[in-house]
Amino acid sequence: MSATPENWLRPEILALDAYKVADASGLIKLDAMENPYPFPPELRAAWSARLQQVGLNRYPDAGAAHLKTELRSSMNLPPEAALMLGNGSDEILQILMLALAKPGASVLTPEPGFAMFKLISKVAGLNYIGVPLGQNFSLDAQAMLAAIERQQPGLVIIAQPNNPTGNAFDEEALRQIVAAAPGLVVIDEAYYPFADSDCLQWLEEFDNLLVMRTLSKLGLAGLRLGLLAGAERWINALEPLRLPYNINSLTQASAEFALQNYAAFLRQAQDICAERARLAEQLSAIPQLHVYPSQANFLLVRVPADQANALHGGLRAAGILIKNLQGAHPQTADHLRITVGTADENKQLVAALAALLR
Amino acid sequence: MSATPENWLRPEILALDAYKVADASGLIKLDAMENPYPFPPELRAAWSARLQQVGLNRYPDAGAAHLKTELRSSMNLPPEAALMLGNGSDEILQILMLALAKPGASVLTPEPGFAMFKLISKVAGLNYIGVPLGQNFSLDAQAMLAAIERQQPGLVIIAQPNNPTGNAFDEEALRQIVAAAPGLVVIDEAYYPFADSDCLQWLEEFDNLLVMRTLSKLGLAGLRLGLLAGAERWINALEPLRLPYNINSLTQASAEFALQNYAAFLRQAQDICAERARLAEQLSAIPQLHVYPSQANFLLVRVPADQANALHGGLRAAGILIKNLQGAHPQTADHLRITVGTADENKQLVAALAALLR
Repeated sequence: MSATPENWLRPEILALDAYKVADASGLIKLDAMENPYPFPPELRAAWSARLQQVGLNRYPDAGAAHLKTELRSSMNLPPEAALMLGNGSDEILQILMLALAKPGASVLTPEPGFAMFKLISKVAGLNYIGVPLGQNFSLDAQAMLAAIERQQPGLVIIAQPNNPTGNAFDEEALRQIVAAAPGLVVIDEAYYPFADSDCLQWLEEFDNLLVMRTLSKLGLAGLRLGLLAGAERWINALEPLRLPYNINSLTQASAEFALQNYAAFLRQAQDICAERARLAEQLSAIPQLHVYPSQANFLLVRVPADQANALHGGLRAAGILIKNLQGAHPQTADHLRITVGTADENKQLVAALAALLR
Repeated sequence: MSATPENWLRPEILALDAYKVADASGLIKLDAMENPYPFPPELRAAWSARLQQVGLNRYPDAGAAHLKTELRSSMNLPPEAALMLGNGSDEILQILMLALAKPGASVLTPEPGFAMFKLISKVAGLNYIGVPLGQNFSLDAQAMLAAIERQQPGLVIIAQPNNPTGNAFDEEALRQIVAAAPGLVVIDEAYYPFADSDCLQWLEEFDNLLVMRTLSKLGLAGLRLGLLAGAERWINALEPLRLPYNINSLTQASAEFALQNYAAFLRQAQDICAERARLAEQLSAIPQLHVYPSQANFLLVRVPADQANALHGGLRAAGILIKNLQGAHPQTADHLRITVGTADENKQLVAALAALLR
């Protein structure tokens, strides 16, 4: 047997498609749920001074003790909750799924959902079970509960608010699911800065629940910091899977600094919510579009049948990159996802989209 | 079945011991192969200016194109070699082992070796096969070749120079092993800045060989940047396993900057090599110690029987942290590993060790 990848790699790895990152060079970037505002200018000098104190010749603090203290207080974590950090939520998902990948084990999640849930489940060797969302992308509690009963998944994972749909799910339905799940439930609150809901306090009620967050949507996507909070017995069992120096020193120092100035970043999130309302109104005024309610920093938009590809391409030609959901999932045929940008970027988007539909 | 980690996590994960990081607060740190010198002072202002150009609100460049260009030219990579980056070598090891973890697959490596090889193989679900080193920790080519023939490992991994022993293995023996391996061979050149050998050029000869490096020992341990170079067919097959934004923006900018000033970091490595020679001489002058030849930034030292624990503890009490290899592997009983520090740190170490042995 010759020494080729085809002979030696796991077949499910050979079959994987890598997560595609679109080339955004020179484009207005409204595709990736990034905060459009730069690092707060009034904080730059102090941040820079903090970075200069980092000893790059030393390994990072493996326990990230100072950063964890800031996260606990900024996010008002229940004191008894334990905390694990990841190089973005992606790494946390990988840790969770690798840990739970017993032979025959499953992960169950509503669909359409975050693409990485499926991709990472394949890497981990878990069976992936997608349960379709209901009307207007609401959580279909009956379908979820029935699938949980039938499939007995080791992991149920739900994004709240959901990506790519932007809506927050009914809290009572979520609670029923957490209570009914035989194994672990993870609620991914990546979009918490823009949402009314907050499941962190539920950690006091449920001992099979973990809540995942990230600083990425808060204006710190370049740092790669995700966190997982919840029952100590679960976090302690997962910790040996975390590579010890996974959070580098510059990220630790920068995130710690940002959280000490959390209000400035939350203000940016509030500005994004205000822009979201304006953008939703302007897009809704275009008769061919249906705009869904959003508690995230993006809007899901339904376009006339079979026009999603042309509109996505037309916007790109006009210098604006958004996300085309055509082909991503049957329920998102004829849908586009638009990240909320600055007032000026949103204005350009609305004008370009209106022109394409005229 | 109740929703506890014991019921749902893979048994091999529940049995894992996390990689232990010793508490070094207030101690002279000679335990972790860190470069003892700070970031070159003459470069700090320019580095800081570069970091201020990073847009933290955006995701990192998923392909790290600029950084890869710098790595290729600094390290003189064969032009046809492909390149993958990791959040430290640790993440690269995880990617490799997850990719190769077919049912029944094995990783084979000489022992004593790098602790993460074994830890990550268990996470990935690979059979781990350690082949004992020979006399004076040399590579036992016959034993390696026989084990490869018998076990047909999907992955053979060898650190060159080796950790924790510090010696470089015979190149002819290494070549025989690469040629005989039925699957992939990875040579981990973590300590290349302090070594005479360089296997990167071997990539032109062998299409089942990948070479792994890190910037950690070069004075940039806080950044977490590892790289894997080799045949495009292997790297392309592994890429879908890499989490797309695994190298954060500050690491990309800092590493790129450091490589544009590579000579300054290589000079520090040369200074460490000069200190290594002085330290080896001073330790060899203590009659109870045997110091092994090293091509890394640390020295392996044999101490009198059953004194390793006491000496390690005594040094700690004297304010100096080194690595105690007692208990790590049968062949390293009565051995200590000492990272080369600054001239002053090394002097304090020698004095403290001499006092303890007096």
